[in-house]
Amino acid sequence: MQTAELVSTGAELLSGRTVNAHAHVLGEHLARIGSKLLRDTTVPDNIELIIDAVEGALSRANLVFVTGGLGPTSDDLTREALSRFLNRKIVMDEEMLNIIRKRYEQHGKTLSLEGKKQAETIEGAEILNNAVGAAPGKRIEVDGSTLFALPGPPREFLYVLEQHVLPWLKENMVDPLQLHENVFMICGMGESDILTRFAAHAFPPDGIDIAFCAAPGRVEIRLSTSSDASTLQKAIAEIRKLLGDFIYAEERIDLSKVLGRYLQERQATLATAESCTGGLLADRITSVSGSSQYYRGGVVAYSNDVKIQALGVDPQTFEKHGAVSEWVAKEMAQGVRQRFNTDYGLGITGIAGPTGGTQEKPIGLVFIAVADHDQTDFKEYQFSGNRTWIKENSSQMALDVLRRFLGHISM
Amino acid sequence: MQTAELVSTGAELLSGRTVNAHAHVLGEHLARIGSKLLRDTTVPDNIELIIDAVEGALSRANLVFVTGGLGPTSDDLTREALSRFLNRKIVMDEEMLNIIRKRYEQHGKTLSLEGKKQAETIEGAEILNNAVGAAPGKRIEVDGSTLFALPGPPREFLYVLEQHVLPWLKENMVDPLQLHENVFMICGMGESDILTRFAAHAFPPDGIDIAFCAAPGRVEIRLSTSSDASTLQKAIAEIRKLLGDFIYAEERIDLSKVLGRYLQERQATLATAESCTGGLLADRITSVSGSSQYYRGGVVAYSNDVKIQALGVDPQTFEKHGAVSEWVAKEMAQGVRQRFNTDYGLGITGIAGPTGGTQEKPIGLVFIAVADHDQTDFKEYQFSGNRTWIKENSSQMALDVLRRFLGHISM
Repeated sequence: MQTAELVSTGAELLSGRTVNAHAHVLGEHLARIGSKLLRDTTVPDNIELIIDAVEGALSRANLVFVTGGLGPTSDDLTREALSRFLNRKIVMDEEMLNIIRKRYEQHGKTLSLEGKKQAETIEGAEILNNAVGAAPGKRIEVDGSTLFALPGPPREFLYVLEQHVLPWLKENMVDPLQLHENVFMICGMGESDILTRFAAHAFPPDGIDIAFCAAPGRVEIRLSTSSDASTLQKAIAEIRKLLGDFIYAEERIDLSKVLGRYLQERQATLATAESCTGGLLADRITSVSGSSQYYRGGVVAYSNDVKIQALGVDPQTFEKHGAVSEWVAKEMAQGVRQRFNTDYGLGITGIAGPTGGTQEKPIGLVFIAVADHDQTDFKEYQFSGNRTWIKENSSQMALDVLRRFLGHISM
Repeated sequence: MQTAELVSTGAELLSGRTVNAHAHVLGEHLARIGSKLLRDTTVPDNIELIIDAVEGALSRANLVFVTGGLGPTSDDLTREALSRFLNRKIVMDEEMLNIIRKRYEQHGKTLSLEGKKQAETIEGAEILNNAVGAAPGKRIEVDGSTLFALPGPPREFLYVLEQHVLPWLKENMVDPLQLHENVFMICGMGESDILTRFAAHAFPPDGIDIAFCAAPGRVEIRLSTSSDASTLQKAIAEIRKLLGDFIYAEERIDLSKVLGRYLQERQATLATAESCTGGLLADRITSVSGSSQYYRGGVVAYSNDVKIQALGVDPQTFEKHGAVSEWVAKEMAQGVRQRFNTDYGLGITGIAGPTGGTQEKPIGLVFIAVADHDQTDFKEYQFSGNRTWIKENSSQMALDVLRRFLGHISM
């Protein structure tokens, strides 16, 4: 197997300005084609530190990726660092210079010094064209290893990776790793409860690797083995029995996408009424391409007036039970379903904090209701954490409430 | 100055399952107290690789942070790695064991072997209690350097960092860096246009460091110097002249928060009507704590029926101009303002893709309108990129359209 390392460059990655997601994206793609990302070293825009990190990576891995520092500004130093480290000249790529000049002309500008700098490359490098940004990537062969220099902006990084790097790797990969694995997505059960259940049943069996990854309202479990495919099949049967309907998918997928499939299969439509999640639920539903086929729309009812006027919640319900109550959640779900003329309606009301909590109704108290033509069901949650965390958990559990309702699974 | 390095452990960080945001969070906090994060090394759950990374970090920095691998599962290996590397025993912390036992009892469970494992610590380490999760952090002094082992889940990491690590660092920081800096947040102008303008005016002056960071619809510029405060003042005056009302803030802040302040100052209220952003705009507005004081709510109008029934868009407008048109955007903004009884209304309609584009109305075409009692304004955009990117850019520019409308700045 060819192992890979990443060197991410950029002061913004270490000073709290940008989250570095390159390891995340690259790691997933490499795993799919039978390689493995073994390390990410993130360093600031500093020639010595970049050289040090690249040297370390090349000493351990066959494939080394360097991201960032290819742009036009004075803190873009990757070209210079690679030139010094490899002892190869920086040269002007005339073909790339023409492409960049044309781009400038299309925007009615003349080529600037900054623009010119982006056509610079390292002697002997193959240029990897970047159609979504200015700085192209580079592939450089170094003593039997391959070094890729890729642009830092996530969209440009992904473009050059998908268009040039992955096709090249698929053709040139030596001895790709054959890994048997299965992924389980769990909603409604926490990591520690899962562990307790596993421990009681001596799961997983010998020879199976298990990895956990928890996110708000969700746990991902990955079972894998590089040798024994039949033991993996046994373990898959076992985990299905142990976790049952808490498993919402057996692939790495967001719950909103799973629900999209359910709704499409049923040719059913959905509308949402949100208070404390403030649009996050609608945003997640509409992040799925094709969601317009089953999602009609929603109301973000932040004030009680909106809950009354746009959703038809009875003013007396507020007086009797308060805005954060199962009764308001139910009327929201029913109201949006009727007004938007859909098969299903979801209603969420709760307290996201950091203010607004009381002894009786603390921050994190959330009611989620689901309605169809015949019935309305609800569930009460008490989440902990900050505003973002509570919004994320609430939107996730709202999707789960709908999943259980559609599948006739007990809440 | 004391320099810092981070070692992030976890297979999920390198295989495409989780984005590692620890460097982002830690880097920002360290910069604020006069230290500097110089490197993040991310390695999988492997004892040898963890030891190698920690050894490297300790050879370069005074402060070393190791995250992850403190939990109860078999892939949690940080304790074991540190014990071997430091040649110190793993011991049971009886006090922590009691705390964990009590937590189990509160949930009606008896302490499991997994639970017990989390009370294990390294000889001589100070325990850093973790009230939001099971695995506590540790502070270990190593030959004049300080090593912190912190839990991997972001929420727990942040809790131990804020509660224990930062207070300790503030007391024990040697020779903190005095950095003069100023941040500028720009909306409505891209990085390359900014660079061209800077180049034409020989900006920034000597002695001032400049760093750029671009996100959808936004560029952040940081000017800094560790010596010359008066040159910084001159540079600040200059950049304000060069970028004018494209600067929406001089602190690192989301545009939704700036708008919240504007609306509160005016005691004004807002409602939103979204099509292609699908709730993202509402989600961003309601991510600001206290937004219920000025944000009444919104409609996610994904289908035309909803645009007609919930917002009062004239069916003839669709026939004449199509759903993606300035006219529909304007009627959406006016409709939601009237129905939700607010001072301002925002309307967005567009094509987020990946399907639905035509020659005449391509993917990424978005109309954004803003209305008050007297007038309605709009702006047309042509974004590029994928669905997520178009949603993000659209929500950002909708906020900018409102900012310009409120501030009487030309669109």
